[in-house]
Amino acid sequence: MSSVKCIWTVFGVLCVLGQILGLDNGLALTPPMGWLAWERFRCNTDCKNDPDNCISDRLFRTMTDILVAEGYAAAGYEYINVDDCWPERERDPRGRLVPDRERFPYGMKSLSDYVHSKGLKFGIYEDYGNFTCAGYPGVVGHLEGDATTFAAWGVDYVKLDGCYALPGDMDHGYPDFGRQLNLTGRQMVYSCSWPVYQIYAGLQPNFSSIIEHCNLWRNFDDIQDSWASVESIIDYYGNHQDTIVPNAGPGHWNDPDMLIIGNFGLSYEQSKTQFAIWAILAAPLLMSVDLRTIRPEYKAILQNRKIIEVDQDPLGIQGRRIYKHRGIEIWSRPVLPIQGQYYSYAVAFVNRRTDGTPSDVAVTLRELGLNNPSGYRVEDLYEDVDYGVLSPQTKIKVKVNPSGVVILRADAQPSFAYNAI
Amino acid sequence: MSSVKCIWTVFGVLCVLGQILGLDNGLALTPPMGWLAWERFRCNTDCKNDPDNCISDRLFRTMTDILVAEGYAAAGYEYINVDDCWPERERDPRGRLVPDRERFPYGMKSLSDYVHSKGLKFGIYEDYGNFTCAGYPGVVGHLEGDATTFAAWGVDYVKLDGCYALPGDMDHGYPDFGRQLNLTGRQMVYSCSWPVYQIYAGLQPNFSSIIEHCNLWRNFDDIQDSWASVESIIDYYGNHQDTIVPNAGPGHWNDPDMLIIGNFGLSYEQSKTQFAIWAILAAPLLMSVDLRTIRPEYKAILQNRKIIEVDQDPLGIQGRRIYKHRGIEIWSRPVLPIQGQYYSYAVAFVNRRTDGTPSDVAVTLRELGLNNPSGYRVEDLYEDVDYGVLSPQTKIKVKVNPSGVVILRADAQPSFAYNAI
Repeated sequence: MSSVKCIWTVFGVLCVLGQILGLDNGLALTPPMGWLAWERFRCNTDCKNDPDNCISDRLFRTMTDILVAEGYAAAGYEYINVDDCWPERERDPRGRLVPDRERFPYGMKSLSDYVHSKGLKFGIYEDYGNFTCAGYPGVVGHLEGDATTFAAWGVDYVKLDGCYALPGDMDHGYPDFGRQLNLTGRQMVYSCSWPVYQIYAGLQPNFSSIIEHCNLWRNFDDIQDSWASVESIIDYYGNHQDTIVPNAGPGHWNDPDMLIIGNFGLSYEQSKTQFAIWAILAAPLLMSVDLRTIRPEYKAILQNRKIIEVDQDPLGIQGRRIYKHRGIEIWSRPVLPIQGQYYSYAVAFVNRRTDGTPSDVAVTLRELGLNNPSGYRVEDLYEDVDYGVLSPQTKIKVKVNPSGVVILRADAQPSFAYNAI
Repeated sequence: MSSVKCIWTVFGVLCVLGQILGLDNGLALTPPMGWLAWERFRCNTDCKNDPDNCISDRLFRTMTDILVAEGYAAAGYEYINVDDCWPERERDPRGRLVPDRERFPYGMKSLSDYVHSKGLKFGIYEDYGNFTCAGYPGVVGHLEGDATTFAAWGVDYVKLDGCYALPGDMDHGYPDFGRQLNLTGRQMVYSCSWPVYQIYAGLQPNFSSIIEHCNLWRNFDDIQDSWASVESIIDYYGNHQDTIVPNAGPGHWNDPDMLIIGNFGLSYEQSKTQFAIWAILAAPLLMSVDLRTIRPEYKAILQNRKIIEVDQDPLGIQGRRIYKHRGIEIWSRPVLPIQGQYYSYAVAFVNRRTDGTPSDVAVTLRELGLNNPSGYRVEDLYEDVDYGVLSPQTKIKVKVNPSGVVILRADAQPSFAYNAI
């Protein structure tokens, strides 16, 4: 896969055209977007007492319908992803995975067909190990068979977890299963939990190999329904950015885990912050929320086109935390258009303080590393504010709410901009 | 002051009629309710650049108007309380406090008159020490003069902070200023920070004296705009309940600090939890929020009449955490009516888990300590659900959202209830 490879700092950007040995399935050239059951619905298998919320055919068909009917698909969300707890505990006599007969009575091919009939794509979950995290069958000993099964079901996306496995085995295990997926001839996005389990085990992940074999991968803890969890993830990606950021690019992404916007634990401000930072991180945008009951203001965050455009920027360069002092952080991501040697940028100002009242932040574009002498057209991506074209010397002032964010986009202007007329 | 003094556990309740030497000003027979500037507006004195949000005459008149116009006063909120940063840095030549001349151009008597003209009461802030926490004049050396000034201004409520003071001095200092307040002949609620500063200094507060001299007092940290802060306060009051709970009663209350509902850091569920637990704690209900911009669903929490009735229960018995296991907590507070030897109760089920999906809790009334053989009429105080009259053997099942709450009221039924008709 041919790609632009860039190292960038606030002092400048260095890019080289070159070959990145990304997973050669042509998929996920921008971070995948969709809906994933786990964070919100977990391993709820109690369809008798909780039929509306259990992991079942009905739940996924309902979310499929809403994705299309309520504008999520039009905004870019395309995958409907099943997570753990979908199969029977035992394989069939021929060793094949069987969807739970009560909860998925029509089988996975039927569900997949339904998802496809709505113009969406279908994802499934398994585990590289003897069992999934919730104790359902793992892929070990069935690599070829399960890949074939998934292809036959019309699966478009496979998340492979890492419970009940030896982290040291993953260096061959994840590539092995990826090869089996490719050998089916069906294009399937491949989501790996490979590095996170190795990091927990004290191993140093081989990111060259991970990039080569996976479309996305988890580096850190599962997200939970709390701001503390979101903060811990933001901190992890900021504190380890020198190791993590260079691994991202078209076809291969760091995955900081699901969006929990619209659930129980985040305030409105915190929800805006998660969405903005996930876009800066070039993260997969996988909602895990009850789309039947989400409040409109949270839906509006998830469907914010301008921020989705940042996330999906074709350059695929993951952003970085460029400032952190007294609770104020600034995050920045290079995006298109490029004018001469100058990128455009998305810039997020995050207020990690809890002292009740908004904080003022004032900074020149130059201090943000935005040096294009022709200036930048700057706009706020949540508020309807257009700052016009600003020069690098201009000081921008923003007011950031506690646990909130202001995210701007600064589009580099062509050099003739000042000479027009 | 004559009072019912009770010690109660899940195994039973022991009450004695007796004399509690509460502050003899006849005030705060139920926990004070009102609006207090600090948590939301802090020490913002920049009226030039931020005229709508600075600590000023205008801010308090605006909140006064909204308290009346938008139903808060009708729901029971009556105090408009100024916090730190209201005076000039220097006293006048006669040693009197002077309100900031720019920000309070009409003086405090004018503001107080305005608040009174709307049927509300007016509160002010000072500090037992050389300075307030933000560096404004403290009361030391001016006890009589400042008390006289406050009385002349028509102050109804004084919060006395404890920065820049020796905690050991507070055992005489807080009573001294309280006596000066009483000597003015004007009834003023007296809010003390006395125990919290002593606890931080490693001293053992003399709660008998605190109860005798203060209407309310702070035991723990200032609240901040985050769920983590609310959780830390809930934990403190739960973990220290054997020491704290017996001190509360009509005229003398533990103050876990302001309500931050409607600000930036709490989700809707977390906001419901703060309100429910504050009611269980018989806490002062002091909102600190921008009432101009609060969203309607948060306003509805703050105006929930059924929960306010729990908070304001005339018995004034502070509730307790009676169960804590695997992230589920149950809190319970005895309230009126009493039927024979049986209290009625408010019971809050709190889910401290963050694992995405609601948790089920099932418990019999008897397990909650509700043993009235005539049963209890049970209703949900947030949801419009009436369980009818349940016997102690009945098992109640509730579904509690992550970081959320279910709060019930169980009214003890008279013994003839089963014999009617």
